[in-house]
Amino acid sequence: MATMASLFLKTPGPSQSLPKTHKTHFVLPQNIPLSWRSKYRAGPLAAARIRCGLIEPDGGKLVELVVEEPQRDLKRRQALSLPQIKLSKIDIQWVHVLSEGWASPLKGFMRESEFLQTLHFNSLRLGDGSVVNMSVPIVLAIDDSNKNNIGDSSSVALVDDKDNPIAILNDVEIYKHNKEERTARTWGTTAPGLPYAEQAITHAGNWLIGGDLEVIEPIKYHDGLDRFRLSPAELRDEFTRRNADAVFAFQLRNPVHNGHALLMTDTRRRLLEMGYKNPVLLLHPLGGYTKADDVPLEWRMKQHEMVLEDGVLDPETTVVSIFPSPMHYAGPTEVQWHAKARINAGANFYIVGRDPAGMGHPLEKRDLYDADHGKKVLSMAPGLERLNILPFKVAAYDKTKNGMAFFDPSRPQDFLFISGTKMRALAKNKESPPDGFMCPGGWKVLVDYYDSLTPSENGSVPEPVPV
Amino acid sequence: MATMASLFLKTPGPSQSLPKTHKTHFVLPQNIPLSWRSKYRAGPLAAARIRCGLIEPDGGKLVELVVEEPQRDLKRRQALSLPQIKLSKIDIQWVHVLSEGWASPLKGFMRESEFLQTLHFNSLRLGDGSVVNMSVPIVLAIDDSNKNNIGDSSSVALVDDKDNPIAILNDVEIYKHNKEERTARTWGTTAPGLPYAEQAITHAGNWLIGGDLEVIEPIKYHDGLDRFRLSPAELRDEFTRRNADAVFAFQLRNPVHNGHALLMTDTRRRLLEMGYKNPVLLLHPLGGYTKADDVPLEWRMKQHEMVLEDGVLDPETTVVSIFPSPMHYAGPTEVQWHAKARINAGANFYIVGRDPAGMGHPLEKRDLYDADHGKKVLSMAPGLERLNILPFKVAAYDKTKNGMAFFDPSRPQDFLFISGTKMRALAKNKESPPDGFMCPGGWKVLVDYYDSLTPSENGSVPEPVPV
Repeated sequence: MATMASLFLKTPGPSQSLPKTHKTHFVLPQNIPLSWRSKYRAGPLAAARIRCGLIEPDGGKLVELVVEEPQRDLKRRQALSLPQIKLSKIDIQWVHVLSEGWASPLKGFMRESEFLQTLHFNSLRLGDGSVVNMSVPIVLAIDDSNKNNIGDSSSVALVDDKDNPIAILNDVEIYKHNKEERTARTWGTTAPGLPYAEQAITHAGNWLIGGDLEVIEPIKYHDGLDRFRLSPAELRDEFTRRNADAVFAFQLRNPVHNGHALLMTDTRRRLLEMGYKNPVLLLHPLGGYTKADDVPLEWRMKQHEMVLEDGVLDPETTVVSIFPSPMHYAGPTEVQWHAKARINAGANFYIVGRDPAGMGHPLEKRDLYDADHGKKVLSMAPGLERLNILPFKVAAYDKTKNGMAFFDPSRPQDFLFISGTKMRALAKNKESPPDGFMCPGGWKVLVDYYDSLTPSENGSVPEPVPV
Repeated sequence: MATMASLFLKTPGPSQSLPKTHKTHFVLPQNIPLSWRSKYRAGPLAAARIRCGLIEPDGGKLVELVVEEPQRDLKRRQALSLPQIKLSKIDIQWVHVLSEGWASPLKGFMRESEFLQTLHFNSLRLGDGSVVNMSVPIVLAIDDSNKNNIGDSSSVALVDDKDNPIAILNDVEIYKHNKEERTARTWGTTAPGLPYAEQAITHAGNWLIGGDLEVIEPIKYHDGLDRFRLSPAELRDEFTRRNADAVFAFQLRNPVHNGHALLMTDTRRRLLEMGYKNPVLLLHPLGGYTKADDVPLEWRMKQHEMVLEDGVLDPETTVVSIFPSPMHYAGPTEVQWHAKARINAGANFYIVGRDPAGMGHPLEKRDLYDADHGKKVLSMAPGLERLNILPFKVAAYDKTKNGMAFFDPSRPQDFLFISGTKMRALAKNKESPPDGFMCPGGWKVLVDYYDSLTPSENGSVPEPVPV
């Protein structure tokens, strides 16, 4: 994936080698390149500190919870003496998310006051009265035997399935896990069949445990993709190195077609028109849990690589990285999380599409969410006032240009909407879409993916859902 | 009900006769009695305007939507020319609530942006960036035939079951009524059997219509209790007339026992200790829709009258009035509404009990909400920062004093907790509770109420739920 690496790092290498401490929010004037916009100049202290162009993380400081190298052995030994909680794969993904500060200012799994504020207000009020967005519960479920085992201990060790200590949770608080209420308030339904609920809630314990995390070492997956998993601090360093004065984030969990590419290119053009000198795209596929019928991360990354090799996006102004969060499919509630996490990574513009984080209703023949609610809710969400929301323009296949173009309502007859169903049917049958819908290499990855699936007993294969 | 009248108005009379325009938030210094606390003194303009002791309504100005007398005939004629929507009893109660500004700054039934903010954030962001609390949807459902009938009309007439025009809704917006999502996000469950949902949502139309209300005349019920239904403006006038420098609200929908009275008296004592000179109690039974097994308003008012005649509350410092809102039984979500509405009526202290606005789970043998979540959520709710929350102290029957007292954990053996179940069983069997639990006159009303019920076919009577 040399091409992708070149898109996100001039000097590819293991991400661990990048500095862990992020100190670029406030820098001395002599460190600021001329192309940076100085958006803020404090009164009497203006000579000493000038804010750089990147948006400030929620809470003012990026949270980082991985303990320093010299202390790791000590923490491992300490973990052995504590009551243990075994983490699921999704739990570890949340530890990853928390450890790098995607959820800043959260310092660990939610205690009850954070959980309640998330469920009721999609936001947290901080000690100084300010409000940050927080729309999905980041919680750790435990069962009765875990709870009994913990007893009065104020700290617990979190371990993986081989009992290796992953983290220590301190000053713990245990409270009830009302699964029905959590599900209803997060998804707006309690219908059975919500993928995340079935995976991580329905069979989880009846208690939640919150506390402050100390993560023993950076979370790695050893799947060949770790080098694409840049932390918010690493992304901020990279945007800073590139002299970005605007960062626009594009969240995706599906194959990229030329309509997406058009949108991203057009967004940069609009930002340049607005006066920004160097807007940088954060192309940010979601890498955590996705439902069975989504295209798996590994295949998506292959597909993205081919699309990017096609040259539709400029490597100088594009950073490709993996967002480690699991997927809730909670529509208007979850899109806030997707946007908020990107603020912490330095993005001040967020592109939002039709029905973001949506899916079909588990029981009824309709979409679970109104397709417009995601962008409406996002635009009104508490704590996201300083993020610029960029709604998707509708792209479709323009038969007069043999390519994807923004839909022109004055000549609807010229446009072809290639639905997700149609795209899937074509890829499964190894047919080709119209020229210009997706580059041939990217399309071949999709065909290969469906080819690789073993048909289930009734002969059907799971269906991926397009963006 | 002479006694009750004397508790809330020195000069009893139809509430319509009170001035409708409320201008007492800012008054000239010479109008301010010495006993008022001047909590706020603006900089250069301090000489001209001093804020009186009453808390400001949400949005800064109390909304009042009843058209002035001279225009009412015109509005009635206008209504005849508009498409009509027939209101249910609960719809009319909401018109009442909106018309008097309990939901200030709402000016009518919610449009979609207000509905979405309510469901997701329990609050509304105003044009100036400030935030007010708004936790329950105040919406009007219509069906397909209503929608077709309205067509492109920007105004509709709202009529009662006899087609009398009640109000005009202007600049209307029609949007989808996703009942499942509304229910899940409001109640944290979609279990069948939620009383309000069964009454007002399940069989309602699939569309919601929002807009600005013009209410043709004050809403009256002609049930002998209208004189107890003071509007927020009337309550503010009454508090001002009494020189209140603090107003503490007590929401109730159940019989009052001496534990409640103790709590109210004790609250006033604490406020005096805090330095307030004249704290006034707003004893504020809910008067809108309640579920079938609650004690009906008429009987509760009779019971309150007897309790108050007993002299446990001081008429000089108590205002009794009816809160016209329907009841959702939505626990932590609804308690915010109960508190917010009282801000608009001038209350700056709100007493919150165990499991406020709660009920049993419709399907499971447990309370629907955690008993502590109400007060926790209330204390963290956006837009309620300026309201002082006073959690209930637990009162129980003190056998050493033959009366209700605050529970003393150092001598638990002396206390008797008289549960709702026990109270109901006693009243149904015409037995007496221990002396000092409730005054005999009030208890007799409860016994009479149960006596008045025709037993249903299986011989059981509906069970009221105590506070």
